Amino acid sequence: MAVYTRLGAEEMARIIAAFDVGTLVSAKGIAEGVSNSNWLIETQCFDASKRFILTIYESRTEIGDLPFFLDLLDHLAARDCPVPRTIHDREGASYRLHQGKALALIEFLPGVSVSEPTPGQARAVGEALAQVHLAGRDFPGRRANGMGRDAWKQLLGDCGREGLAALDPGLPELVERELALVTSEWPAHLPHSVIHADLFPDNVLMLGDKVTGLIDFYFACVDVTAYDVAVTHAAWCFSADGRHFLPQLSAALLEGYQSLRPLSADERTALPLLARAASLRFLATRAYDWANTPADALVTPKDPLAFARRLAFYAQDCNAGLFA
Amino acid sequence: MAVYTRLGAEEMARIIAAFDVGTLVSAKGIAEGVSNSNWLIETQCFDASKRFILTIYESRTEIGDLPFFLDLLDHLAARDCPVPRTIHDREGASYRLHQGKALALIEFLPGVSVSEPTPGQARAVGEALAQVHLAGRDFPGRRANGMGRDAWKQLLGDCGREGLAALDPGLPELVERELALVTSEWPAHLPHSVIHADLFPDNVLMLGDKVTGLIDFYFACVDVTAYDVAVTHAAWCFSADGRHFLPQLSAALLEGYQSLRPLSADERTALPLLARAASLRFLATRAYDWANTPADALVTPKDPLAFARRLAFYAQDCNAGLFA
Repeated sequence: MAVYTRLGAEEMARIIAAFDVGTLVSAKGIAEGVSNSNWLIETQCFDASKRFILTIYESRTEIGDLPFFLDLLDHLAARDCPVPRTIHDREGASYRLHQGKALALIEFLPGVSVSEPTPGQARAVGEALAQVHLAGRDFPGRRANGMGRDAWKQLLGDCGREGLAALDPGLPELVERELALVTSEWPAHLPHSVIHADLFPDNVLMLGDKVTGLIDFYFACVDVTAYDVAVTHAAWCFSADGRHFLPQLSAALLEGYQSLRPLSADERTALPLLARAASLRFLATRAYDWANTPADALVTPKDPLAFARRLAFYAQDCNAGLFA
Repeated sequence: MAVYTRLGAEEMARIIAAFDVGTLVSAKGIAEGVSNSNWLIETQCFDASKRFILTIYESRTEIGDLPFFLDLLDHLAARDCPVPRTIHDREGASYRLHQGKALALIEFLPGVSVSEPTPGQARAVGEALAQVHLAGRDFPGRRANGMGRDAWKQLLGDCGREGLAALDPGLPELVERELALVTSEWPAHLPHSVIHADLFPDNVLMLGDKVTGLIDFYFACVDVTAYDVAVTHAAWCFSADGRHFLPQLSAALLEGYQSLRPLSADERTALPLLARAASLRFLATRAYDWANTPADALVTPKDPLAFARRLAFYAQDCNAGLFA
């Protein structure tokens, strides 16, 4: 949501010159991505105008993880998934170092992020997610889920019972019960693959009902494939505040996904638990950010209760048949 | 430096549909402008891709001033000045109201803002400024300078002697003396015209030595024409920290300006004083912002002393011949 690194035009032109993409014509810092600096870049190459996103990775992205993220984009793009390609520099590298920070140049894709998805759009997102899971099967990269169960425990533990109770008096008990359940019943036997792990509407570019780009793969990792379905379900099938489940979007998302990759019986059985896990994951980061954002900060943290409500929804017995 | 208003894709598409510019294809919040929200918008119109800047005016811009700013852009663009045109809506209005805020759609111009200008670039900026002053002569709009002498007095008074002394022990005395001088000797008899009043490198788009766009006219007003030359001189002819005067840039800027609009003898005589006034103006806003930015704010305020140094430079007797 901010541009952290300041870059003069001359420096930007030198950075762009390391890539075979023509001459710099425009560079606008864009308010996208929560932890990196991003610019929308335009170049002129012979008579054609080309556009790219330049990302400078700030402290929250490990440089050691970049080959995984960037090679994954190339792998998926080569298999016709709607993801941006990485532009390699003149020496063939997918990222460069600039004053101690890594930077990458990535293809610009058209499209906008919807905030009131239609069933047609949810269906298309389900399909695109399945496409990624299938295309990722032969991706050789490995990265553990940095935002897995251990991280949730840590973040929620840091909030403390008082911190959680300040959000909602019933929250400490809910969190304790669900964390224990998800930990003891985690379906480690299910198929694993590359997963996006953060496929919110913000990270999907669309034109009408067509997905033009899945972006922001910086939580991507290898984990239980069906967990990614659960994350995407939690991200798309509720009103933003979590108060209203949207059954038409749910049906469309699952139908779109299964049109390309039918879920196994074991996966369908595990999905209610995985959806509770996905809710806990976003509850954990949001509750932590809520407790750790200064009162006068420019950025308002997102409401943790929006995911506490999803968690409570998925935990109801009457909703166990949702993924059947 | 931030996007204050959140806009979903559907709402953005509805906003853009009020203009005859085709279908929304992309919208990126851009980190430009300190007090408004801006997006770089792309539309598809028949087979052509078009780009625009959408601005939503936040509280610091008076809606009543918008006709002045926007009509001025149209007036200057029609006279071949390198400024973006305002796109009028389907009813012919230059701005619209959206949820109580005004918004305008403005032509996107290519170019980047230089941070280490060359003499060739300073010359081109001087020419472009003269072009605006000449083209603005028959502009009928009137707007007083909201950041004139009364405003500096107010802002510097709010800082207090202690606040100024905390920046530099000699500052209260320098400010007091210069404020008195500039007030008593203000050359109100000189020609007035529309002035940009804030033509820093950030507000000029360039490709090589060519000015492709003068932007951000939100301080534009009617005031002493030569004062705008002084502001531009202070903005372009020093190292950013104000420690080093750059004589080659100064000569090139003044030469470029005078190639289109030669300064009169009276204007040249007044320029040293006007340059001290321009330095006071930016010292005033920066000192005020410095004193009023919370220590843990995300944005670092700009160094007020960068303009105290310019002020001291212009006040030296040996530099009185600078504009002769």
